[in-house]
Amino acid sequence: MLSIDELATPCLLIDAEALDRNVATMSAALPGAQLRPHVKAHKCTALAAVQYAAGHTSFTCATPREVVGMARAGLGGDLLLANETVDPARLKAMAELGTPVTIAIDSDATLDAAAEAGISRCLIDVNVGLPRCGVAPDAAGALADRARARGIEVRGVMGYEGHLMMVGGHAERQTAVDQSMALLRQAHADVGGEIISAGGTGTHDMHGATGVNEVQAGSYALMDTHYGSLGLPFEQALHVLGTVISVCADWAVADVGLKALGMDHGNPSIVDGSVWFCSDEHITFSPTAPVAVGDRVRVIPAHIDPTMSMHEAAWITSRGEVVDRWPIDLRGW
Amino acid sequence: MLSIDELATPCLLIDAEALDRNVATMSAALPGAQLRPHVKAHKCTALAAVQYAAGHTSFTCATPREVVGMARAGLGGDLLLANETVDPARLKAMAELGTPVTIAIDSDATLDAAAEAGISRCLIDVNVGLPRCGVAPDAAGALADRARARGIEVRGVMGYEGHLMMVGGHAERQTAVDQSMALLRQAHADVGGEIISAGGTGTHDMHGATGVNEVQAGSYALMDTHYGSLGLPFEQALHVLGTVISVCADWAVADVGLKALGMDHGNPSIVDGSVWFCSDEHITFSPTAPVAVGDRVRVIPAHIDPTMSMHEAAWITSRGEVVDRWPIDLRGW
Repeated sequence: MLSIDELATPCLLIDAEALDRNVATMSAALPGAQLRPHVKAHKCTALAAVQYAAGHTSFTCATPREVVGMARAGLGGDLLLANETVDPARLKAMAELGTPVTIAIDSDATLDAAAEAGISRCLIDVNVGLPRCGVAPDAAGALADRARARGIEVRGVMGYEGHLMMVGGHAERQTAVDQSMALLRQAHADVGGEIISAGGTGTHDMHGATGVNEVQAGSYALMDTHYGSLGLPFEQALHVLGTVISVCADWAVADVGLKALGMDHGNPSIVDGSVWFCSDEHITFSPTAPVAVGDRVRVIPAHIDPTMSMHEAAWITSRGEVVDRWPIDLRGW
Repeated sequence: MLSIDELATPCLLIDAEALDRNVATMSAALPGAQLRPHVKAHKCTALAAVQYAAGHTSFTCATPREVVGMARAGLGGDLLLANETVDPARLKAMAELGTPVTIAIDSDATLDAAAEAGISRCLIDVNVGLPRCGVAPDAAGALADRARARGIEVRGVMGYEGHLMMVGGHAERQTAVDQSMALLRQAHADVGGEIISAGGTGTHDMHGATGVNEVQAGSYALMDTHYGSLGLPFEQALHVLGTVISVCADWAVADVGLKALGMDHGNPSIVDGSVWFCSDEHITFSPTAPVAVGDRVRVIPAHIDPTMSMHEAAWITSRGEVVDRWPIDLRGW
């Protein structure tokens, strides 16, 4: 196997021990089916297999390709597409996987598309305050009735409180989550079913009394600077490795640009330096100690999910050695 | 061929006629070798072939993979890697293409790496004000001398005035470009060689008297909202096609998220609507007229380059019909 110094850059580096610690910390907090890991955060079946080995055998997906890829990788015991789609070909592909797939629906149109494609299970996606998908809480029960009338099993409800992930301090966030989840419980009272699914990394520890019985967290496994600012019990397990390609008196430049980094949450951070700006294929930064052309640098993305989807593979390191290469095999749609 | 309504979303749509008009407009302004189109903007050899057919047979690349891919596509007559690299394997791959490749160098380290890999041609990359790569203008001549002493042909200089692309009005930008290019001419006086390469879409019409004899523009072919704000003579030729998946009284949601859009320049725009925000796989927006689940929407990225690199292919449309599919085959590094 290559040494880290031999890896072509830019590339993803996952610290196996840090990943294992994050997975263990989350599994202790939310064992087994209490966590439905969200694979959109990493788009990598090899990483999902680590989560599976830790006892989480049900998964959350954001795209049909994630669903199909997880099933083909043998990780399809209980897959949830926590997203709406009306694409007939993709719905049919999911319906014909030979493994049960559960689809979020929030309208008659999404119900109809699922039913016509032969999807047999759904969750009612409920709007709990984030202006995105989800039926109004007081309309959830009627939609569930219509789904059952079409022969689709309604397993319960989901509602993503994404607007609350970064709210203030822990206590303030907990109060906001409690209010948001009251909407989900209200919907569930009308919908029925065994599942109340919600949550993310930023609220993973706030559902002890909300009624939610599975949390859809994903970023916790690898982390980013955005979630890193919350003081969560997870550590940075992913870096984007770069090579210094130009140095002058006031700044240095490495080959980790914005095509290798999710930029929607702003600039990344850099270990042992201060980031000035990113270009397509460059990061300009002030190093804290002198660097030379050819030196390696480690960049920490502001948002893990889109960063992963820009790369073909991640290199797995253990105690400073490269031990594996994991394809980011769930990219695309 | 599929109709536009049958395309799975999100996906890239390139309007063939708009692309042709943009290419023709640029070719009229900068015919033949006066334009060295930058393929980083589209990462697509099929689109580069359109530029080639318009008379531009020399190309600019930002990554070794772009260089290798262009050569393999038969478009390698005069390829410039307008970027520094010290990766021995990638340099060797470029040196062994059997077609002349010119590499930017800005230091002894990048010169040494190029020479050791068997690269035979270079440009001296000069810092003209953008804090990124490039040797100081007054050190360019000595670096050229050392390159020639290593047996590398020095074809001239390049310097990218990227910090000026969005400066004020046209006159103010012209003044700033003139000052910046004075640095490049100063370096060229010491370096020699036939090439003085610089510029981009935002300054493509400002090099009539700067001494620059080839412009490295790329975004002009497809455009984005960022360059669209400058009043340039190019039109939007690319959209990201999406499908509405959820609608409520106050907003609608389509399946074009931040994993399908370069976000470093901020939110995209949407045709017939106002964008609220993007999530990984969603765009929440206010439509100007009522929309229904299943309706198609067209999103205009804020930054074309990273948008292209997130997609596997682009669909080419002509008069409302899909006529071709072009792989985005130069993605990655």
